[in-house]
Amino acid sequence: MTNIDLVKDISITSPTKIVLLVIDGLGGLPDPQTGKTELETASTPNLDALAAKGICGMADPIAPGITPGSGPGHLAVFGYDPVSSNIGRGVLEAVGIDIELQPGDVAARGNFCTIDEKGVITDRRAGRISSDKCAELCKLLDGMSIDGVNIMVYPVREHRFVVVFRGEDLAADVSESDPSRTGVAAPPVEALSPGAGKLADVANQFVAEAKNLLAGHQPANMVLLRGFAGKPGFATMQEIYKLNPLAVAVYPMYRGLARLVGMEIADTGATLQDEFDTLKQNYSKYDFFFLHVKWTDSAGEDGDFARKVTVLEQVDAALPELTGLEPDVLVVTGDHSTPAVLKGHSWHSVPVLLCSKYCRTDPVQMFSESAFLTGGLGRIHSTDIMPLAMANAQKLTKFGA
Amino acid sequence: MTNIDLVKDISITSPTKIVLLVIDGLGGLPDPQTGKTELETASTPNLDALAAKGICGMADPIAPGITPGSGPGHLAVFGYDPVSSNIGRGVLEAVGIDIELQPGDVAARGNFCTIDEKGVITDRRAGRISSDKCAELCKLLDGMSIDGVNIMVYPVREHRFVVVFRGEDLAADVSESDPSRTGVAAPPVEALSPGAGKLADVANQFVAEAKNLLAGHQPANMVLLRGFAGKPGFATMQEIYKLNPLAVAVYPMYRGLARLVGMEIADTGATLQDEFDTLKQNYSKYDFFFLHVKWTDSAGEDGDFARKVTVLEQVDAALPELTGLEPDVLVVTGDHSTPAVLKGHSWHSVPVLLCSKYCRTDPVQMFSESAFLTGGLGRIHSTDIMPLAMANAQKLTKFGA
Repeated sequence: MTNIDLVKDISITSPTKIVLLVIDGLGGLPDPQTGKTELETASTPNLDALAAKGICGMADPIAPGITPGSGPGHLAVFGYDPVSSNIGRGVLEAVGIDIELQPGDVAARGNFCTIDEKGVITDRRAGRISSDKCAELCKLLDGMSIDGVNIMVYPVREHRFVVVFRGEDLAADVSESDPSRTGVAAPPVEALSPGAGKLADVANQFVAEAKNLLAGHQPANMVLLRGFAGKPGFATMQEIYKLNPLAVAVYPMYRGLARLVGMEIADTGATLQDEFDTLKQNYSKYDFFFLHVKWTDSAGEDGDFARKVTVLEQVDAALPELTGLEPDVLVVTGDHSTPAVLKGHSWHSVPVLLCSKYCRTDPVQMFSESAFLTGGLGRIHSTDIMPLAMANAQKLTKFGA
Repeated sequence: MTNIDLVKDISITSPTKIVLLVIDGLGGLPDPQTGKTELETASTPNLDALAAKGICGMADPIAPGITPGSGPGHLAVFGYDPVSSNIGRGVLEAVGIDIELQPGDVAARGNFCTIDEKGVITDRRAGRISSDKCAELCKLLDGMSIDGVNIMVYPVREHRFVVVFRGEDLAADVSESDPSRTGVAAPPVEALSPGAGKLADVANQFVAEAKNLLAGHQPANMVLLRGFAGKPGFATMQEIYKLNPLAVAVYPMYRGLARLVGMEIADTGATLQDEFDTLKQNYSKYDFFFLHVKWTDSAGEDGDFARKVTVLEQVDAALPELTGLEPDVLVVTGDHSTPAVLKGHSWHSVPVLLCSKYCRTDPVQMFSESAFLTGGLGRIHSTDIMPLAMANAQKLTKFGA
């Protein structure tokens, strides 16, 4: 349960500006050698100064113990209930390659695979064909129209692709044609609800036609589909918060997530400096900025403690460019923790720092997991961050008389 | 709302082991003489060392201000929503004397009572007859079969007994025959829903027959029934967590609660040392251990501050036997607080300590209510304990892509 409906009722437009800096995979765990986390190891004088000025705490993106994927992690920070808003795999793959889905679209994740002469799957990944080969085969399958449904096929990487079904009356509640194992034939896609018959039928015709077109293209002589999902019908951030929001993100998945909640997407370059420059150039035109830094998470996923420390120091060094804009509210947090020692996302709570003229400063003087434990925000849910940012920007009116 | 459904979807089996040590009635209140709680008074070097290694916090079993019974207190620690999972009195009494209920059984708590010649209740407890007398009278009533329903009667203590109705189509939604006061006749059991007519009818026939059989056994010449409850259909811990759990508990109610959530029950002796020995002997055969220590609660209920301190010191002295097993996750908590000054369960939040390789240690150095306030877990709900234990044992996969 989030307070998003409550916030929607009391939010107002105002000239104040909010900057939400999401440092992906922000929280960490101690290096066994030193006993210090990535944040405790990094030299972050600017973040420390901000912690001294602001109010700090720890946030659970979903719930204690639950490790979030990137989708739920970001949706929670945007204020959306991450469980009921969970996005299907197909949609996340689609937004992850910058596909703009339309309402009513259904997206599915596809694999090129290998089948033998009896139709039995012998390799679910077709020997991990090259990305070039994948692009070539996707062109072969792209552009079909079946029963009035247009089918777009987009390459992702190696054997992976995305299919988008665009047409009337497509319900995504269908079974997968990927049995998740070899030694069996791909099962047909089946409707799991009465309304999903059309999509199941079209998907099966697509698979049959793909099999024909791929004959002779061994090892990629068949396709498997899974994670069928419709474009989610989220209320936008304009509707909920009355904001005019801009997303600045290098990686497509985060642009895609921002687009799903109604943000405008800035053109930006490939570096941290590009992102900060883009934000500055657009600063006068919007009242909310989501700035996404990916490289902390990448380093954590790679188990590269030292690189994560370096990226944190780079973010810290760039921070004066944000604070120099003097936003009314500056929030620094993450979508989840990615401790280098775990080489992946984790369940650990995430540092959150909010700085504004009215934030009620706490005694925290350092930007770290342990220092934030005694912060004024306490332990909150990540879905509380947006209401707090809105309140500090004086964009929320009183609830009740 | 708990996250039990979410956890069920993402839990996996792994070789890691979790030990959950529940020190019954763990939290306390200061002795007015010294200003120190039981935990602050006790010398607990091993618990303090564990607090220094682990992550600490305070847990609410139900909600701030709500004092839990043993049933909800334990169900919350096992991860079950303690309100929607609340167990009826009859079932709790039954499991409290080691009765193994079958699906469809309905259990009720019974009192032997005294009625006058007009049927008016003059003593709801039949002068608190001896437990021996109770056992003798239960034998008299045990073993009836009414309309195909078999009726088992088990003595508890003094005037208290348990009746189990076993047969087809028994719905427990019936009124009580215990008016909870003297000076009136026992009302008939009435169906409170259309499906409960059969049980009401059988229960009334049982009461009538009991009255006949007890004639001349004054003061125990009648029975009163209350707390009719069906065996709850909980999803088991195997289903939710994919665990193979063992319960080690001296007292039958805790074995019974563990059995209701699917744990295997270890044979163990009557002492703390017996319990620790039993756990060690079974350590290789299970991946989850619930170890229940009762005597802290008993001392608290008796208002015996010094004895509660002594029991805490005994648990502390035995702790190295658990830590020596090097479980992947060790949790130490309670089902509720039982401050000696209150002589009973209380609403106060309960210390919780979790120790694992990946727990993200906090600065807490002492095992006490006040020290835990600044712990890294913050203030959680007791139902968060199992998801946290599972996550730290790396038995939960990511939620969402």
